[in-house]
Amino acid sequence: MKHKVVFKSIGTVLCIEAASMLPSLIVALINHEKAAIAFALSIGIIAAIGAALMRIKTPISRIFTRDGFAIVSLSWILVTLFGTLPFLLSGSIPSFIDALFETASGFSTTGSSILTDVEALPKSVLFWRSSTHWLGGMGILVLMIAILPSVSASTINIMIAESPGPSPGKLVPKIRETAKILYIIYIAMTAVLVVLLLLGGMPLFDALIHAFGTASTGGFSSRNASVGAYYSVYIDVVITVFLFLFGVNFTLYYYLFLKRDFKSVLRDEELRFYFGVVVGAIVLIALNIKGTVYQTIGEAIRYASFQVTSIISTAGFATADFNLWPSFSKIILVLLMLTGSCAGSTAGGIKCVRIVLLLKIIRREITRLIHPNAVQPVKLNGRRVDEETLSGVMAFFFFWMLIIAVSVLIVSLDGKDLVTSTTAVLATVNNVGPGLGAVGPTGNFADFSALSKTVMSLCMLIGRLEVYPIMLLCFPSFWKRSSI
Amino acid sequence: MKHKVVFKSIGTVLCIEAASMLPSLIVALINHEKAAIAFALSIGIIAAIGAALMRIKTPISRIFTRDGFAIVSLSWILVTLFGTLPFLLSGSIPSFIDALFETASGFSTTGSSILTDVEALPKSVLFWRSSTHWLGGMGILVLMIAILPSVSASTINIMIAESPGPSPGKLVPKIRETAKILYIIYIAMTAVLVVLLLLGGMPLFDALIHAFGTASTGGFSSRNASVGAYYSVYIDVVITVFLFLFGVNFTLYYYLFLKRDFKSVLRDEELRFYFGVVVGAIVLIALNIKGTVYQTIGEAIRYASFQVTSIISTAGFATADFNLWPSFSKIILVLLMLTGSCAGSTAGGIKCVRIVLLLKIIRREITRLIHPNAVQPVKLNGRRVDEETLSGVMAFFFFWMLIIAVSVLIVSLDGKDLVTSTTAVLATVNNVGPGLGAVGPTGNFADFSALSKTVMSLCMLIGRLEVYPIMLLCFPSFWKRSSI
Repeated sequence: MKHKVVFKSIGTVLCIEAASMLPSLIVALINHEKAAIAFALSIGIIAAIGAALMRIKTPISRIFTRDGFAIVSLSWILVTLFGTLPFLLSGSIPSFIDALFETASGFSTTGSSILTDVEALPKSVLFWRSSTHWLGGMGILVLMIAILPSVSASTINIMIAESPGPSPGKLVPKIRETAKILYIIYIAMTAVLVVLLLLGGMPLFDALIHAFGTASTGGFSSRNASVGAYYSVYIDVVITVFLFLFGVNFTLYYYLFLKRDFKSVLRDEELRFYFGVVVGAIVLIALNIKGTVYQTIGEAIRYASFQVTSIISTAGFATADFNLWPSFSKIILVLLMLTGSCAGSTAGGIKCVRIVLLLKIIRREITRLIHPNAVQPVKLNGRRVDEETLSGVMAFFFFWMLIIAVSVLIVSLDGKDLVTSTTAVLATVNNVGPGLGAVGPTGNFADFSALSKTVMSLCMLIGRLEVYPIMLLCFPSFWKRSSI
Repeated sequence: MKHKVVFKSIGTVLCIEAASMLPSLIVALINHEKAAIAFALSIGIIAAIGAALMRIKTPISRIFTRDGFAIVSLSWILVTLFGTLPFLLSGSIPSFIDALFETASGFSTTGSSILTDVEALPKSVLFWRSSTHWLGGMGILVLMIAILPSVSASTINIMIAESPGPSPGKLVPKIRETAKILYIIYIAMTAVLVVLLLLGGMPLFDALIHAFGTASTGGFSSRNASVGAYYSVYIDVVITVFLFLFGVNFTLYYYLFLKRDFKSVLRDEELRFYFGVVVGAIVLIALNIKGTVYQTIGEAIRYASFQVTSIISTAGFATADFNLWPSFSKIILVLLMLTGSCAGSTAGGIKCVRIVLLLKIIRREITRLIHPNAVQPVKLNGRRVDEETLSGVMAFFFFWMLIIAVSVLIVSLDGKDLVTSTTAVLATVNNVGPGLGAVGPTGNFADFSALSKTVMSLCMLIGRLEVYPIMLLCFPSFWKRSSI
């Protein structure tokens, strides 16, 4: 690992974090909230440390895979730690572990909360809480690449480490242009969503909060009853549609809007799978919940659609207490948590493309047994996928399950029931937010022990960065200094 | 598929099944039970059909992978269907679906039951129920290979399809000798166990039943309270030790007893992992349950040891209602269900060797990120494992999880709580027997719908035959006739 390059990059990231607190400071000032002092102080501390790190002198050099991972994992951990400052200094969340959990939940776009009454918080603090979602959604390092002159050559390895999916790539030859395009699409879609929410009668503050939560597929709300608090079919529909859209691989928007290549989009196998799963899940759940709390099929479809897109996009907003739904619907939701949406979106979970590849691998295994001598490459969108990627996807699946198993084991030490312990971990690793049982849409994570909260905070970061960046930190050989 | 060879082999298997009912008939005659008529009839029907199929004329020809799988999957399905006859004809289990579930549970060595009061059944029927365990444990086709002149050359492909593990092989060059050696070890160890149980004061009938359930790691008991009914530390210890032993790869016993090669046994990585997991789980559970129902650490260790070996060996006997244990202990038991014991044993589950390989694959993935150019073969017991086997193991893991997910989804339609629905499927796919919730050690599977019982019966066979033989039946190309 190239320590100097890594720490210099982290300095830049911290300065971006400090800058990202400015809007919250303005919200505090407008609303005459005492939290303004907390924000001013936080900005000062973080900017000072960031600036100091940025002054490290280092020649421009290649960033290898390992360095990319180091920059990303350490940046995310430090950004999370410093992101607790506004919560702690304003006294909104006095406990460090709780603030850590809430900040990790924010940046990782999970949306799980230890707060029992969000409406009691100062508006500026709520604004910061949701800002972390928006920054974490597309990625704070992708932002760094987009806006700043390169700290080093080959920043692609930073982007690969931060972006979700088995093989994140460039849209255009220049990595900086790619990052810019991604952020432009992200900002444009968020802006459209804000306008649509305003048109639905949502106050500006609420519209921003829910747009941040939707765009990042995070799911923090400014209301205790989440999106359900607005009782508006229009708002439900708008958010349902945008949750689906933000679960789509952003590369496809590039093809659609900038290259006008509709064919590639329509033929994309991951998008088709994602769409199929969403429609299938909505139909099954609607049929299952009709006649329970919901009398008409229209009502059943409305709540099923919202919850399905909210869970598969791993946002975790709620308009219904799905804890009360029948087992069949709950199992579908749990499976959607694991699936997640598309790679290259802001969503969490295993990602549809990986599931598609895994299914194709199984089909190949079976064909091999029937025709042992047939050569059968696995193809995606007409192109052959190399064996190393396939092997990586399969290993990833096991690693994901292993992390869930170990985390559930630790969290179960709290003695909570099996459904609560298991879905709490599923909801955090997959960056969903609410689970079932005591961590269902009307519950929260306040009641867990400090150990469980720490483990789940780690789970959220592991999930957002897709396992390897965080897990690498546990290996001593990863830390070894390498030549510049 | 070579239809003639396949059906001729199935005929042989059915004749073996008919023969295996003779001891139950004798038990019925000794005890003057009416069920004797049911057994006589069943033997007649099955033997007649088996003999008819055996008369099919076919030249001796190569059995390819596909044919091996066809023989195994169709044999198991037919043996299960015909195995219901004694239950149905004796009136002990009047419903066909229930009889199917119980027979599939028997042959697959699962031990899940739809019976609410086993003690009410005729002894001969209980004997048949446990005989299916013993036959299914080492495998009815392995028995066929061991005792009969070959129906065809290359019977290795039958053995591969029936034996658990990623790469079952021959002990000695001749496959028939290998099958014989395996059965001799199996019979010898079962006999020793029967003697030890008799010495502990267990009646002969009970000793046979529990020896069958232990040797096959099936778990059917002749008592409603399972092994707990004997309140004997001696019996608990004997069964605990033998459950562990029957979870060991039988190849190691060959090395130990016949080759006196202690080094290979002690260095076997799967055995070390298995032993480590068992000891670790016992310690953790004992510490967790001490002070709950169990006052002394000795008592806690006794019940923890029994339950850990019973679950990881996928027998599923119970001496305690672990449904009442704390969440942490229950999560450990659920994870042990999935792990299972060693490949090449009579146990179910994913098998330790696969978990060992998966962990090694993950370590390699991480090393690759740190040193992208390093070549790192995965080794097991000092020997390099080829990439195809590794890929197969990873695909198997996903397939296993997928089957569990789909089955849980279907079973959840019954509307039972999530813990019951999920662990019912886990207990059947992994051939364990009891789960948690309503299917815990004091519960049973009687209450599920016919659909769920059918799905779980399939799950048990899928689990016993390790997925592919049964899943292949769903592919039309598998059924295509091939030249002889």
